[in-house]
Amino acid sequence: MADPASDPAPEPAAVAATVTACVLIIGNEILSGRTQDVNLAFLAKALNEVGIRIMEARVVRDEEAAIVDAVNACRAAYDYVFTTGGIGPTHDDITSACIARAFGVPLERNPAAEAVLRVHYSEAGINAARLKMADVPHGAELIENPVSSAPGFQLGNVFVLPGVPRILQAMVDGLKGRLRGGAPVLSRTISAFTTESSIALPLAAVQDQHPAVEIGSYPFVRAARFGTSLVCRSTQPAALDAAVADIVALLKGAGIEPIRDDEASAA
Amino acid sequence: MADPASDPAPEPAAVAATVTACVLIIGNEILSGRTQDVNLAFLAKALNEVGIRIMEARVVRDEEAAIVDAVNACRAAYDYVFTTGGIGPTHDDITSACIARAFGVPLERNPAAEAVLRVHYSEAGINAARLKMADVPHGAELIENPVSSAPGFQLGNVFVLPGVPRILQAMVDGLKGRLRGGAPVLSRTISAFTTESSIALPLAAVQDQHPAVEIGSYPFVRAARFGTSLVCRSTQPAALDAAVADIVALLKGAGIEPIRDDEASAA
Repeated sequence: MADPASDPAPEPAAVAATVTACVLIIGNEILSGRTQDVNLAFLAKALNEVGIRIMEARVVRDEEAAIVDAVNACRAAYDYVFTTGGIGPTHDDITSACIARAFGVPLERNPAAEAVLRVHYSEAGINAARLKMADVPHGAELIENPVSSAPGFQLGNVFVLPGVPRILQAMVDGLKGRLRGGAPVLSRTISAFTTESSIALPLAAVQDQHPAVEIGSYPFVRAARFGTSLVCRSTQPAALDAAVADIVALLKGAGIEPIRDDEASAA
Repeated sequence: MADPASDPAPEPAAVAATVTACVLIIGNEILSGRTQDVNLAFLAKALNEVGIRIMEARVVRDEEAAIVDAVNACRAAYDYVFTTGGIGPTHDDITSACIARAFGVPLERNPAAEAVLRVHYSEAGINAARLKMADVPHGAELIENPVSSAPGFQLGNVFVLPGVPRILQAMVDGLKGRLRGGAPVLSRTISAFTTESSIALPLAAVQDQHPAVEIGSYPFVRAARFGTSLVCRSTQPAALDAAVADIVALLKGAGIEPIRDDEASAA
């Protein structure tokens, strides 16, 4: 591909179409249990605000073949791919080189990124390891890093972000204008002190009657009492209201009073 | 496959061979950001104790095709697959049916699982939704659930576990005797108040000299000071000691004093 960054961002087929994404979490430290990932949950909520839905996530080890294969499988399968991790200055930061390999383009020193890094570190502090963070695939468009200056980048439908959560979060905030989403998923939660298995069969019937709403059932324990949270998610507000009404009627008909935490909220 | 559970557990090729695993985290609630996964980090540490190394993880949505495809891709690629989530009593719990589909065997009521559930819920409390948790793929071997009775199961090299962390943790503790691992990965961490980019180049040289050791570099901030943790991981104790010694020498040679948190630890 001669100039992947010149490809336009994916165009939703219709206003209500689902715009999909995959998150690739790159790093041995997540797979070893040393580091608890928190970026997936942040990205899920931030992307839903602009109407992009995460359909899959993968945690990939720091190995070129594993990263290249995952990038190529996921950029073909989803509208967007977001990678986290592996763009720092050390030998185990191989994400940028792997993205270049996945797209079949050279990795090259980006003059704008180099300029930013030379200002950030000063001419006295700049070194080869720091300048490595200015090496991005040919054709990539930079993503500004307002925290620590080393940029991320976009190539085609792949957005390359760092692993440190507070830096990733700042960069995603600045990125949203570049993303084209569909309708955000709206969510309503109805909770009650009942076990999942007490209401499972009538709940399945409600799900069957509301195909535009995805109903999830999640058990919880609160103050030593078993409870269930029923989460309704849909891009269609009227469909969501109808499903919530049927679930509330189901519970009340069974003599179960919903707990009041069912305000509408994103996600 | 007529009777997948009769396949022996994978046999490590040699004592020092890496025994690999993939974790499939099944559930829309993880992809939407509603629920923060904590099972991957737990499994990473627990499996490393018995010499099994997680090479990849995927978060998969509650859709049959997505689950079946992921199970079949990963059980062919790794020695073990561990799934979490989707084995409860509600309509969105489809993992057991998907595993049956992936293996091409029927889903059937397991008499031993049914007996356990009938005792747990009593004859007055048992219902169709609760009995659904006794439906497992033909040939599966049950995994005992000491917390809430509904069992998990093993089919071939795939181990099916619940999503609720305290239940998963109890089941994994009881499962370890059934797993055959290789040599556990040993880990040593050397931390210092220096930035990654100050030591990146000599650190890369240490990595090149110690191919049996995986060296990861992770920045941190502590008491408003920037620091770097260098994590060395290997199945070979002598190789690990040698790499740690070279890193300590690298730091001291640069006038940087390591912080004392470098005791040996698993993971």
